[in-house]
Amino acid sequence: MIYLDNAATARPDIGAAESAMRYLKEDFFNPSSMVREGFEIHKEMDKARASLLSHVARSETHELVFTSCGSESDNQALFSAGRRGNVVITEGEHAAVFAAAAELARRGIEVRRARLNGNGSVDVNDLLKKVDRKTSLVSVIHVNNETGAVNDIDEISRAVKEINAAAVFHSDGVQAFGKLLYRLGENIDLYSVSAHKIGGVRGIAALIRKKKCVLHPYIFGGGQEKGLRSGTENTFGIAQFALAAAAKYARLQENYRHAEELSSCVKNSLDKQIFKIISTGNCSPYIVSASARGLRGEVLLHMLDDKGVVVGTGSACSSKTRFSRVILATGADEPTADGILRISFSAETTMEETERAAEIINGCARELYEKTR
Amino acid sequence: MIYLDNAATARPDIGAAESAMRYLKEDFFNPSSMVREGFEIHKEMDKARASLLSHVARSETHELVFTSCGSESDNQALFSAGRRGNVVITEGEHAAVFAAAAELARRGIEVRRARLNGNGSVDVNDLLKKVDRKTSLVSVIHVNNETGAVNDIDEISRAVKEINAAAVFHSDGVQAFGKLLYRLGENIDLYSVSAHKIGGVRGIAALIRKKKCVLHPYIFGGGQEKGLRSGTENTFGIAQFALAAAAKYARLQENYRHAEELSSCVKNSLDKQIFKIISTGNCSPYIVSASARGLRGEVLLHMLDDKGVVVGTGSACSSKTRFSRVILATGADEPTADGILRISFSAETTMEETERAAEIINGCARELYEKTR
Repeated sequence: MIYLDNAATARPDIGAAESAMRYLKEDFFNPSSMVREGFEIHKEMDKARASLLSHVARSETHELVFTSCGSESDNQALFSAGRRGNVVITEGEHAAVFAAAAELARRGIEVRRARLNGNGSVDVNDLLKKVDRKTSLVSVIHVNNETGAVNDIDEISRAVKEINAAAVFHSDGVQAFGKLLYRLGENIDLYSVSAHKIGGVRGIAALIRKKKCVLHPYIFGGGQEKGLRSGTENTFGIAQFALAAAAKYARLQENYRHAEELSSCVKNSLDKQIFKIISTGNCSPYIVSASARGLRGEVLLHMLDDKGVVVGTGSACSSKTRFSRVILATGADEPTADGILRISFSAETTMEETERAAEIINGCARELYEKTR
Repeated sequence: MIYLDNAATARPDIGAAESAMRYLKEDFFNPSSMVREGFEIHKEMDKARASLLSHVARSETHELVFTSCGSESDNQALFSAGRRGNVVITEGEHAAVFAAAAELARRGIEVRRARLNGNGSVDVNDLLKKVDRKTSLVSVIHVNNETGAVNDIDEISRAVKEINAAAVFHSDGVQAFGKLLYRLGENIDLYSVSAHKIGGVRGIAALIRKKKCVLHPYIFGGGQEKGLRSGTENTFGIAQFALAAAAKYARLQENYRHAEELSSCVKNSLDKQIFKIISTGNCSPYIVSASARGLRGEVLLHMLDDKGVVVGTGSACSSKTRFSRVILATGADEPTADGILRISFSAETTMEETERAAEIINGCARELYEKTR
């Protein structure tokens, strides 16, 4: 099987899981218990926290709060900062931001959504026009999870703060962390990252905050994570996440160049008579979105699955709706949105797999095209 | 080492973890992706869900929603149902309910807290006096996590519904699930359970709801869990939780009788000149709370830790405050609250360990008593 749906979830780093197994075995203690064993594990958890943070920010200025998943991180950011006035997001946000904003709207907060460019990045002019003195929060996804489009969040956040220095700037960095060479710019207040997109297990993620930014808890209780996220700490998940991330960051640029080769291969190999590439311009090399316009992406996906090639059609989360709202927001028409395939790589994907997959994708698309015309 | 802090966290079931490892290895797929592999895993996840639910309720009337931890389950219940009028909880609630209720109070909801009896169970008359036509939610912990006191939630919920049939009744069942022979009574609307107290890993828990009870999502996003809890499903955690719970339920009554022997042993062995047993009357045999009145429980805990006996002083979550609010609410004075030890068992705790631990506890307490008087 050729697995090219890494943006949905990546194969866990089993070496990291095996190393972290000691937190399920001899070191299973509750890190918040008062015994020495708990205290030791608390120290190790804080080392994992520092290691994870070090990849994107400095501990002098930033702090990392463990959560259970990227969606929780996004929800905490939105419900913490989106408390009054208006909230500005983009049409390209992940469902966790999009749906949390919709909930804010039900509670009476005005939600403004900025338009997208053709590759899924935000139309910055439109976004900035929507920010004003009453904006409490701006949330812009770093790497679009459907198209891979990269938003220049440093530049956008700088411009936002020029309009309103008090607005909190959040970015969902789930598809960037462990993949792009990036360190948090000074105007990024909150940044969501997740384990399971980069070889971590599920059940663990984090929200990074600039220390100067007020963050409210979203899950209340025993006061773990300095009161910012209650619940017994998932020490196995935390340790495995830290190890998986460290492995990614140790080879970040090498992996990035490799992903560039893979995405170039796919973009060049897909039959131009059938496929339109959505992921153009400044996109993460880990994601290629292409549309077999007029064909049904879902049918194509099942044909490919039968031939051992696993791809996605968009966000796995929103797989229940026919047309991706993000693809439609890029200006694509419904036949284009219907034909979308999302091909997403990991550092472990090989060129041979990618070449073979591109051939199979072309073959299936031609077969379907012949059938349906 | 003799581990007697199982109410804080229990040793994970490693056999169950090893069986579930396949969801980190060959079957790591995203269960919400549209490919066959994802669909197969979604089916298995639903089998695990059905198995977990079957221990306490029928699938015809109830539904189980996976969350990331018991605290999240409690928060979802409280923020879902506690939207207007007043909310009635008890002074004996776990921090996740207690602090979520405090947040509701900050948002303008009136929170009423019912008094406790001497063993930590709720004073039912006081609770019922606080329920009226404006009560939107009543939350009563099933087994108190500090004293083990069992609240008769079926009887309490019946009486609550007599006063106000529209009030939602929630119970935190974290210390009951997998330990007590219990099936949800017809008036229990929401019930929180967690994996890591019964051999499950952390990062997974559930909220069980009566299908007739409206439940609002708390984490918004891709719409997993039928829209009730977004975030990529933690398939490893879910499978391991289901296996760990099945193992507990297969021997539930045998384990229960064993725990009764262990708790009786501790209650009978602790030096009556020094210790006062808090866990009297109808208590779970898995938890014994005892106070070395006038001594500092924390000092005793560290002495015991040095001798290889791990116990707790109360809830691990609230281990930062000197006096347990729950113990004070039982009517205990500060010297009694200061001297609290919580000794909590698992099915794997042996009688030999328990006898030896009781001796060591007596020895340390006598030593400390001699030192401090």
